[in-house]
Amino acid sequence: MTQTQDIRDVAAIDLGSNSFHMVVARVVDQDLQLVSRHKQRVRLAAGLDGQKNLDNASIERGLECLTMFAERLQGFAEENVRIAATHTLRQANNSHIFLQRARDVLPFPIEIIPGIEEARLIYLGVAHTQPESGAKLVVDIGGGSTEMIIGSGFEPDLINSKQMGCVSYTSHYFANGKLSKKNFAKATLAAEQKMESLAHRYKKKGWDVAFGSSGTIKAIREVLIGLGFEDGIITTERLDKLITVLSEWDTIDDIELEGLTAERKPVFAAGVAILSAILHSLKVSEMHFSEGALREGLLFEMEDSFKRSDIRMRTTENLANKHLVDLEHAAKIKGHATEFLHQVHKDLGIKKSSELFDLLEWSALLHEVGLSISLQAFHRHSAYILRNTYMPGFNREQQRVLAMLVRFQRKALKLHEMEEFALFKKKDIVSLIRILRLAILLNGQRNDEPLPSLSLSIDGDKWTLTSQDENWLESNKLLDADLASEQEYWRSAGWELSFTQSE
Amino acid sequence: MTQTQDIRDVAAIDLGSNSFHMVVARVVDQDLQLVSRHKQRVRLAAGLDGQKNLDNASIERGLECLTMFAERLQGFAEENVRIAATHTLRQANNSHIFLQRARDVLPFPIEIIPGIEEARLIYLGVAHTQPESGAKLVVDIGGGSTEMIIGSGFEPDLINSKQMGCVSYTSHYFANGKLSKKNFAKATLAAEQKMESLAHRYKKKGWDVAFGSSGTIKAIREVLIGLGFEDGIITTERLDKLITVLSEWDTIDDIELEGLTAERKPVFAAGVAILSAILHSLKVSEMHFSEGALREGLLFEMEDSFKRSDIRMRTTENLANKHLVDLEHAAKIKGHATEFLHQVHKDLGIKKSSELFDLLEWSALLHEVGLSISLQAFHRHSAYILRNTYMPGFNREQQRVLAMLVRFQRKALKLHEMEEFALFKKKDIVSLIRILRLAILLNGQRNDEPLPSLSLSIDGDKWTLTSQDENWLESNKLLDADLASEQEYWRSAGWELSFTQSE
Repeated sequence: MTQTQDIRDVAAIDLGSNSFHMVVARVVDQDLQLVSRHKQRVRLAAGLDGQKNLDNASIERGLECLTMFAERLQGFAEENVRIAATHTLRQANNSHIFLQRARDVLPFPIEIIPGIEEARLIYLGVAHTQPESGAKLVVDIGGGSTEMIIGSGFEPDLINSKQMGCVSYTSHYFANGKLSKKNFAKATLAAEQKMESLAHRYKKKGWDVAFGSSGTIKAIREVLIGLGFEDGIITTERLDKLITVLSEWDTIDDIELEGLTAERKPVFAAGVAILSAILHSLKVSEMHFSEGALREGLLFEMEDSFKRSDIRMRTTENLANKHLVDLEHAAKIKGHATEFLHQVHKDLGIKKSSELFDLLEWSALLHEVGLSISLQAFHRHSAYILRNTYMPGFNREQQRVLAMLVRFQRKALKLHEMEEFALFKKKDIVSLIRILRLAILLNGQRNDEPLPSLSLSIDGDKWTLTSQDENWLESNKLLDADLASEQEYWRSAGWELSFTQSE
Repeated sequence: MTQTQDIRDVAAIDLGSNSFHMVVARVVDQDLQLVSRHKQRVRLAAGLDGQKNLDNASIERGLECLTMFAERLQGFAEENVRIAATHTLRQANNSHIFLQRARDVLPFPIEIIPGIEEARLIYLGVAHTQPESGAKLVVDIGGGSTEMIIGSGFEPDLINSKQMGCVSYTSHYFANGKLSKKNFAKATLAAEQKMESLAHRYKKKGWDVAFGSSGTIKAIREVLIGLGFEDGIITTERLDKLITVLSEWDTIDDIELEGLTAERKPVFAAGVAILSAILHSLKVSEMHFSEGALREGLLFEMEDSFKRSDIRMRTTENLANKHLVDLEHAAKIKGHATEFLHQVHKDLGIKKSSELFDLLEWSALLHEVGLSISLQAFHRHSAYILRNTYMPGFNREQQRVLAMLVRFQRKALKLHEMEEFALFKKKDIVSLIRILRLAILLNGQRNDEPLPSLSLSIDGDKWTLTSQDENWLESNKLLDADLASEQEYWRSAGWELSFTQSE
């Protein structure tokens, strides 16, 4: 008897403000073995102009790097690749253009993730890399944003992302490359101001070990070792010393430090200032470097392909509970909506494995969160909450899709308010809206009367709902009237809804 | 020894879609004695055009009525008059024009209250009028909206306002004045559809006695008595019978029923259809008429002048708790903000009795509610919540003021996003914003270090904050930096902030 081993290759890419990174690993049974790491300094942030548009040169640099990555990823299945973009692509007004052009060179979806989601994944990467028990503080200073998390095990408890990074702080506080005590003081004070709103909560929560991850903190560790601190531990005293050393040079170009690469040098001083501010603000006594980072977080989450879906399910449940959603009612709607999508997904050209099934389920469970604000126009409040709340496991676009689905759950179909999506087709989102509306409408009377067997069929823009009980609507005048109102809404949107009853 | 009696006259006015009502009462010690009632059929709703603008004729009819009321109110102090406007003025896009012109004839502020606030006040009016113990269902069918409340004692538990009324349903379902079984069925079904989203919760909650208030239900009671049901109790069977009777006439003009006034006749059929739908939807076995209504609610709330402020304080506390606001921190900010306003109110031309003091306090207590959605841009989330949540005791404009105060609590002063107000001066709201920002900023470090004695002084747009501790900022570098950033924000808005320290 031969035993078949479950082997597959997975890859994670992060599109950072300073560099793009790719890591490829092999999943052998339960084990994750790193196969290769790739890094290219793309300096995307440097291409952002005053109107927050990425210039053409930086887009080209990014695409060139992705083209290279694409070669390595030939033959990879879509579910084995995850790509996350961070601060600069979050900021850029024309990020959709980058995403469109990226699709031509790299046939995998790129997710722009919120800062807080980035923080969660970084924490996950570090938590998997550092087996130490006890509460962890994790700090990651990127080119445009800095993430700070306290958690224990694989669970983050406090999680924040602040808009300060070594690239942006270099241009603000070390313009013209001038080094001075005064510039360091300015940069550090600005970073401490950023920390003000969270320092109190973080110190109150506390931690057992502090870790730093990614390039900035790695470089600081290397330089401290070069200065004779062989254990590589980062402390406020050592950072103060490092600042004194750095201030002795006139310009950034002059810096010559053992352990500092030419690539890191331009943004090193700003990184030191930010880390010093963080350690002072949070009163961190010592910080260790961890190899884990965003891309490892992405990778470890892919390792168990159900894990992310688990996290999102838990996020959905937590949110529903927080807003006191009637879960029994929501579950009925989820049931009908899912059933309808199963009936028509082929006609709609939606694969059974598509994420759209999940999005429909989550929107059904969350469509009433806005009731916690008020009954009046609650569909709009639901959309506001789903767009703006931190939802662990969801990327920005998924949150926007959920917001649109619940926005259009009832009332007039003002489709001009519908947004554009990069990862999804508008046509598919519109199909989900129709399905969700029907499921909500059929359960509108909130009673325990079971519905007859219903089937949905599609002929272009004409949708037909068929009941197996020929007298059903005759004995449900109110539902009949609700269906008539819904037909009217569909007609105004240029669609057609009909209803038939058969034995 | 003579005893002085505390006697004062108070008046409440409601500006309804169909009629304006005024009631004047005398408060003798703890007792409220009705002095006079005034009513004029203004038919405001009939003047609303397709673009939801009130036409000139209806505005004139309204102003004429207010001019008459104003004569009766000569010599009344502002705190003894309360005026609430409901559905039609909520709907009208040009309601600000009506309010501006009303100020010229009637020197008391008119509050446009949200439907749910209207419902709360109606409940209060009925609760004071009906001494029965036990849970009450109260229904009030107006010209444009219908309020439904379940409560016990003076506390409403479930509270809703639906956009259906005897004026709007007449033009929708009895156009051309035609009466028929079919028209009644259509109107009733439409009203039942409106009830669908709340019927389940209301039936689940339950009640001991059901009351109806205001003109529509009063007229139905009178007509039922005329038909021989001498107890005047309203039941579904009697309404069904009444609908059968009404359907026998061809047109509304033909109706001749004992107890039906000429004034009520045009909108009577629609009112009967709506009430029938409500009684069927909620399975109400019998309903009694109560003399209490919106204006009585306004009046009873004025009787104890602290009561409304109590209700709003409780609303504020409930909302703060619901969103897990750090109340200790909020109380510190409230303390500083109030102190500053006391220091400068004369220079600002704000009276000590002004409601602006309350608004500043409430905004201080609620400025962080948006954190429950997310830390990022939480000032905007706070504003969204305060604008859209039902806040018992607050009128629409007060909620808008609170939303604006918290919207501008921090970050850049994008004052072009500021709204216009009818009851408040923009200049005063801007002053409160400055004070709130300073109070928040001074407490930004969230520690227990007491602040030195601080005083605020004003010279036009130049504000100066003076500390009694001459070394304070030298030992608080971070606060010093925060003040510098704030000075920058003020400068961009064309204001000036300076800071001095003296022994």
